[in-house]
Amino acid sequence: MKNIVVGAGISGAAVARILAEAGEKVEVIEAKDHIAGNCFDYFDENGICVHKYGTHIFHTDNREVWDFLSRFTTWYPYMHKVLGLVEGQLVPIPFNLNSIRKVFPEGMARKLEDKLTERFGFGRKVPILELRQAEDPDLSFLADYIYNHVFLIYTTKQWGMKPEEIDPSVTARVPVYVSRDDRYFQNRWQGIPDNGYTAMIKNMLEHENITVRTGTAWKQVKDEYAKERIFYTGHVDELMDRCFGDLPYRSISFDFRTYDREYFQPAAVVNYPENNDFTRIGEYKYFLGTQSSKTVVSLEYSSAYEYGKNEPYYPIASAANSALHEKYMAAAREAYPNICFLGRLGDYRYYDMDKAVARVFALMRENGILKA
Amino acid sequence: MKNIVVGAGISGAAVARILAEAGEKVEVIEAKDHIAGNCFDYFDENGICVHKYGTHIFHTDNREVWDFLSRFTTWYPYMHKVLGLVEGQLVPIPFNLNSIRKVFPEGMARKLEDKLTERFGFGRKVPILELRQAEDPDLSFLADYIYNHVFLIYTTKQWGMKPEEIDPSVTARVPVYVSRDDRYFQNRWQGIPDNGYTAMIKNMLEHENITVRTGTAWKQVKDEYAKERIFYTGHVDELMDRCFGDLPYRSISFDFRTYDREYFQPAAVVNYPENNDFTRIGEYKYFLGTQSSKTVVSLEYSSAYEYGKNEPYYPIASAANSALHEKYMAAAREAYPNICFLGRLGDYRYYDMDKAVARVFALMRENGILKA
Repeated sequence: MKNIVVGAGISGAAVARILAEAGEKVEVIEAKDHIAGNCFDYFDENGICVHKYGTHIFHTDNREVWDFLSRFTTWYPYMHKVLGLVEGQLVPIPFNLNSIRKVFPEGMARKLEDKLTERFGFGRKVPILELRQAEDPDLSFLADYIYNHVFLIYTTKQWGMKPEEIDPSVTARVPVYVSRDDRYFQNRWQGIPDNGYTAMIKNMLEHENITVRTGTAWKQVKDEYAKERIFYTGHVDELMDRCFGDLPYRSISFDFRTYDREYFQPAAVVNYPENNDFTRIGEYKYFLGTQSSKTVVSLEYSSAYEYGKNEPYYPIASAANSALHEKYMAAAREAYPNICFLGRLGDYRYYDMDKAVARVFALMRENGILKA
Repeated sequence: MKNIVVGAGISGAAVARILAEAGEKVEVIEAKDHIAGNCFDYFDENGICVHKYGTHIFHTDNREVWDFLSRFTTWYPYMHKVLGLVEGQLVPIPFNLNSIRKVFPEGMARKLEDKLTERFGFGRKVPILELRQAEDPDLSFLADYIYNHVFLIYTTKQWGMKPEEIDPSVTARVPVYVSRDDRYFQNRWQGIPDNGYTAMIKNMLEHENITVRTGTAWKQVKDEYAKERIFYTGHVDELMDRCFGDLPYRSISFDFRTYDREYFQPAAVVNYPENNDFTRIGEYKYFLGTQSSKTVVSLEYSSAYEYGKNEPYYPIASAANSALHEKYMAAAREAYPNICFLGRLGDYRYYDMDKAVARVFALMRENGILKA
């Protein structure tokens, strides 16, 4: 039985590599004309590494994943920071003690800092729903402030909802970080591949047991390969000709612009939680510390996904959508007896890059390819 | 009946476009030799986009207006800030908590911040008349300070009045902003057209149902077009040969200067509320973030409007002036049975750009051109 991997993103490349190193022959099928999936990046004429599908920052606490990927790249020691334009000022996101210092007058900021550290402890990430329950008027003022200025409009833009449609429980996830740590991630290992994600994934796929066919849609080969062992990282609804309707996703469109100046903004990512229709602006030269008199940015717009018209990015978490995904997987297993699913699209789960690779390790253990 | 639009500014262009898209033929008459009215801008030899009639910053909370204009331009994500030279220091205008920090010693600033936030709440814009009524000596000191240093001389320059002629109620509008938000506007959508306002308005007017005749005064065509449907955006007194006397306006004169340096001042607009005769200086390269070793600024002088000698800018709000405007409109409707009025001059109202376009939408709904 042949091993067929559908999709040459980070999940597909990892599964292909592990199979190949276990002595299996693997054929990787990729519909796009390039490898690396949504991790795809390229160096433009100014030497700036642009992430075609939006900013990707690698971060993990999983040593196995880090060690595995580090065989295929060295890393630029980048620590990600996100600023948000809140009442006209660029403040650290998630909202933390430094954000409080920037936004509020000093006496008020000091009082909030004292109350937060006393009540929740320095270093806690406190969901604003918990903050609101504190019943202290200052802390609940802060919770309301963050809800209104950081969360509300951003979320309506990100998910295409009206404010009144947003379930209050969703706010539970928005934290205030009782810390002066401005980093977006606190993971042990963080970095950007020195030669880009595409080069890292290319190295993963360079193995004598692996062949890669880009520009090849699954439907072109599905009859030939139906009985093989299939590792499917694509959309499960497309696999079954969308027979039960579309699995919903959010999509993103990017307005890429090159400016004739050294920097556009003071951080790689600036969120716009109150203004405009784009959710954020990414500036790519920060990721590898590239020196250039020009700079490339992308304005990022969240939009509805329409099959065949744009790219699916984010699965939309809901019980109904999970049930539809399950139904599709069950039907697919009838049609393809040796199929398994992985990746952000295949599993219909919003994996970070490290989680996608960790999922591959787990799957390879389930399948006996790696030792348990 | 033909549709005649008098004036090719943002109001005239919007009305022409909406009519054209409804299938109507439209003829736009413009006395000046260029379109775009007071929004007119041009790129100079250094690539700096200069606003010929003074700084224009687009800002709105009206999604319909934003979406409409966004069909004709992309936007540079600019957030407007104004600084004022107050006691020799550049401080944020409107006066806010950061201005207080800059102007007063630390202990006093802290006390004022605490009193403002406690009494009015963080985030409030408190008119200084309300501030004075607080009867707290520190808050009324602050109210007096802002009145004397930020409001008084600026207003005499702006409106050509002596200090004693200024109605105290006018001060009610001058706020202190209990916030650290330095932006001049808090609207959701803000930006500058990437290729300038003129290009945006040119795109609006480019439609097969629209013809535009610049350099054509209304009086040249009025006999021919008297019975047509007229959308009039010009001065209503001129339309009636100023038969009841002049409608008063304030005018502005600009002293444009190019300097051989990167920047002239640290923000796009610096107000001079205490010094000199000009009201403010605009520096144009900020609006599109233009990189150049030169910079263009304009010193802005407010002056009386004289018919035929300078341009009318600001209608002067008063009951007598509104009555005169009404009288002119009534007479005009006798002479031109199918006329309606819009725009800053036509309505004799100080519209921002977005309000001018919103007015067009309302008018098109009243006329059944757009659905209610």
